[in-house]
This record gives sequence, structure tokens and C-alpha cells, in this order.
Amino acid sequence: MSSPVENISILKLNSSGLTKTADKVAVEEPLEISLEYSTATGRMQKNIAVTMRTPGHDEELAAGFLFTEGIIRGNESIADIKVSHADENRVTVVLKEDVQPVLSHANRNFYTSSSCGVCGKASIEAISVVSPFKSITDSIRVQAAALQKMQELVKQQQQVFEETGGIHASALFGPGGTFSMVREDVGRHNALDKLIGHALLNNWLPLNKQVLFLSGRASFELLQKSAMAGIRLIAAVGAPSSLAVETARENDITLIGFLKNDRFNIYSGEKRIDIN
Amino acid sequence: MSSPVENISILKLNSSGLTKTADKVAVEEPLEISLEYSTATGRMQKNIAVTMRTPGHDEELAAGFLFTEGIIRGNESIADIKVSHADENRVTVVLKEDVQPVLSHANRNFYTSSSCGVCGKASIEAISVVSPFKSITDSIRVQAAALQKMQELVKQQQQVFEETGGIHASALFGPGGTFSMVREDVGRHNALDKLIGHALLNNWLPLNKQVLFLSGRASFELLQKSAMAGIRLIAAVGAPSSLAVETARENDITLIGFLKNDRFNIYSGEKRIDIN
Repeated sequence: MSSPVENISILKLNSSGLTKTADKVAVEEPLEISLEYSTATGRMQKNIAVTMRTPGHDEELAAGFLFTEGIIRGNESIADIKVSHADENRVTVVLKEDVQPVLSHANRNFYTSSSCGVCGKASIEAISVVSPFKSITDSIRVQAAALQKMQELVKQQQQVFEETGGIHASALFGPGGTFSMVREDVGRHNALDKLIGHALLNNWLPLNKQVLFLSGRASFELLQKSAMAGIRLIAAVGAPSSLAVETARENDITLIGFLKNDRFNIYSGEKRIDIN
Repeated sequence: MSSPVENISILKLNSSGLTKTADKVAVEEPLEISLEYSTATGRMQKNIAVTMRTPGHDEELAAGFLFTEGIIRGNESIADIKVSHADENRVTVVLKEDVQPVLSHANRNFYTSSSCGVCGKASIEAISVVSPFKSITDSIRVQAAALQKMQELVKQQQQVFEETGGIHASALFGPGGTFSMVREDVGRHNALDKLIGHALLNNWLPLNKQVLFLSGRASFELLQKSAMAGIRLIAAVGAPSSLAVETARENDITLIGFLKNDRFNIYSGEKRIDIN
């Protein structure tokens, strides 16, 4: 299997001059995600997307991506996930006989990078229609002090970041601030799709009783994917964008930004945070 | 015109407790990029991509995107760029009568976020075929000390980052380390497309005598866009991915990572750096 870390030789310049040294970089490779499903004329295979990802947990990435983009409805749609032995950069999600993918949703990915394929307000509202967990009101409450410990807890688990300094993490925590799991990737949307894919394949969805931790900034795309998985509390180390805040507020998601060990900002949904 | 910064009301938690305060976030909004061009049956308008971007320099973003993705050949292809008055999130690049877009290249964007639409080695080599500046050997040399000053110089110019803490920058510097220009965006590929679009519209291409500064990590996609614009020296504040390093080495691009004011790493092309 491909490694998430590659060893290379580089030159390091610092106060003691230039030295040749071994270094590690995070691996970035294309992954082709395909679907196999039934049509009137028999089984059909269709390429859905190519994403630049860090190898590892590719089945989770494929399942998570298809779910958060609204192309499949859940774990019950999936018969099998096949990773090509000849080409590790290709994964096929095989749907059950009676399951049809929602390929109209695939179109919104057929756009440029970091895009969502939406254009304006109407489409932003459309997320809540798509999410199977829109109507969930029961959700987590968490203590501020527990949130402030999360970054350190994730760092202890984040092996690829430790080695390369160049990777994003998405992590899940339980209500008491207990670490549950982390996924890493050069693409922050991939890290989240791997995490949600893991939850999906283990029948953990919806994630309304968990905290989603993001190692970087919070964009519209990450909020949209989170809403799909029923996530109601997101704590990001970086800044949110305007559209991330708007999406959080419209979908009743608590959004924390600039999470440090002694402070954070609440952009939406303070009702889920216990300050003391 | 839409502002790149939005004022919102948030709650801040720190050692003195919880306070309601005014805050600024970087604006993220969809931009639809369309092409208008001639066909056998008359003029045709076609949507090419939707990207989530920070408003501002949208004409540059559209022109840069179409060029770095290989859909148009250069400034000489463009007759006009129209921004809709009714909908500021839509820009149309009008091609000259005798110019045909390379729409097969548009397909590689019709994939998921942060993707490149390539699959493996053969396609990575294909960049150099596409770039009109592949054969340029004449290029910049720069002093290590000049590189080490760049992050501070860019910060002084980066207004949206200063206000929001949540945005990427791409900047150009001259051979002596003179600051030339900066563009900001919530998407790092957009910041680079705006920069290259500005250079294209001002007939500055190729950028083989400039240093490209990136405020974040260096991915394959950013290396690919840089190669298209003839860039030969990239200095990134963050880590490069494995494929970014490989692409730099294959395209004779100098790639610096982890750029700080007292150190940096050279991943490729040390011949362009004067150490002293």
C-alpha cells in the first residue's frame, strides 16, 4: 500500500548554513472514485471524481465523498468497495442491486477546485433539504474547557502532521471531550470525507452527539459536508469564511473558530457551549 | 461591489470571560466563470466553472483561471471581460472572433475540489506540453536574504488577512526581492489565478524573472498553475506535498518551503539561490 509519507533529500538553510538532509513530505496522489450500479441494460461503471489525496483510508474517502455530496443515501446503499490491486489510485463503490445513485448531485462537483457548484442563496438553502438529518434537534453540549484541550489531544494523534508539517486533520470528540478518532489528508475536505466515511461505514451517523474538530479554516464546503452528516458542533483552529458562518447559522450548527488552549470565538449556536 | 470583508457579531471567550463583539470575516461567495465564443452557428455562451472565492479582482480570476487551466492561450485570445451588473457573482470572458477555447482542458476541472483531474505520471508530464513557456531556460537568481524578508513584506500589504486572519496570499517579487504585487483569496488557487490573471492582462507573462511567494502550503495544483505562467522560483511559507516536489523537479522549478525570516528548505532547483 502507498505510504502517506515520502522520504526525500533536500537542502536546509539556517543560521549554521546549508546542509543536505533527509526529509519527509506528505504524499499527494490522485484518487479516482467510481460507482458501479444497475441500469435497465445491466451493470454500469461510472467515474465520479478525481481528488488529490494522501493515500490511506481510501474506501472511507470514497464512501464519505459520495455521501456528503448527496450521491448515495447511506451505508445501506453500498454492497462493496473495491480498491484496484493493479492501480491503488482507483476505488470503486459498488451499489446494491436496487439502489440508484443521485447523479444530478454529482454535477456540483464537476467544477473547479474548492468549489461547491452552487450559485447563491437558493443553493445554500438546498443543503438542508439534501441532508437526511436536517430535522434532528437533539444535540451535544460541551464545556469550553474541553474544547480548549482538543488541539493538543489531536496533535498527539496526528502522525503524518508530526512528520511532515503539511497536512490537515479532522477529528471527532465525544460530549465529555473524549478523543474518538482522527483522519489526515493534504486536502481538508478529504480529511473530513474520510472521517464521515468511517462513521458511515460503521453506522455511526448522524454525528449530532459528537464534536467535529478541524485543524484549519472553516469554509462553506466543510460546513456543507458536516450538515450532511448531522454534525451540530464544529470547532476549527482557523478562521471561518462569511459563507461558513452563514451556513452554520442557517443550519443550526454551532461554529467555533480560532480555537486555542485559552480562548476561542463563537460564530453561531452558543447554546451548545458551557462556559464554566 | 461586494466587499472582501464582512462585519459580523460574535462571542469571544478568553481569560476575562465571554464578551459580545464585532468581528470581521473573509467573504466567500461563488463566482461563475463563463466563456463567450464563436461556433459554426453563431456566438455561444458556456459555463466553465464555479469557484468559491473572495470578491475582488474577478476579471483577473476568470482570465487567470482560463489560462492556467489551458482553456485559453493568452491575453491575445480575449476581446472583453464582462461582469454582470445584476449578479456580481458571474463573469464572462468574451473571446475574439477567430479564437476557439480548448474545452477538452476544461474537463479536468470537472472534478472534485482541490483535484487536478489527472491520474498518474503521464498526466503530470502533460503539463509541460500545455505550458507555452516550457522551453524557457533564462530565469531568475535571488539571494537567500531577500527570500527571508518576503513574508514580512507581504504581511504589510495583506489587508484582508490583517483584518480577518483567514485568507491566502500569492505575491510576486522582482529579482532583487522588490515587492511587486499581492492577491488574496479564501482559496489559495484563486489567489494565484488572480495574480497570474493580472500578469496576463498586463502582458507580463512569462513570469520567469519573478519570485512567486505563497502564504501557505504548496500543492500539485499550485505548481501546475505556476508552470503554465512560466514561473521558475516559488517560495512557500508552508510545506510542499510529494507531488508538488516531483512537479517542481520535472519542470525545472525552484521550490522553497517552510520559508521563515531565518531559515528555509530547498526542495528543488538550488541553482537559483545565492546563499552567501
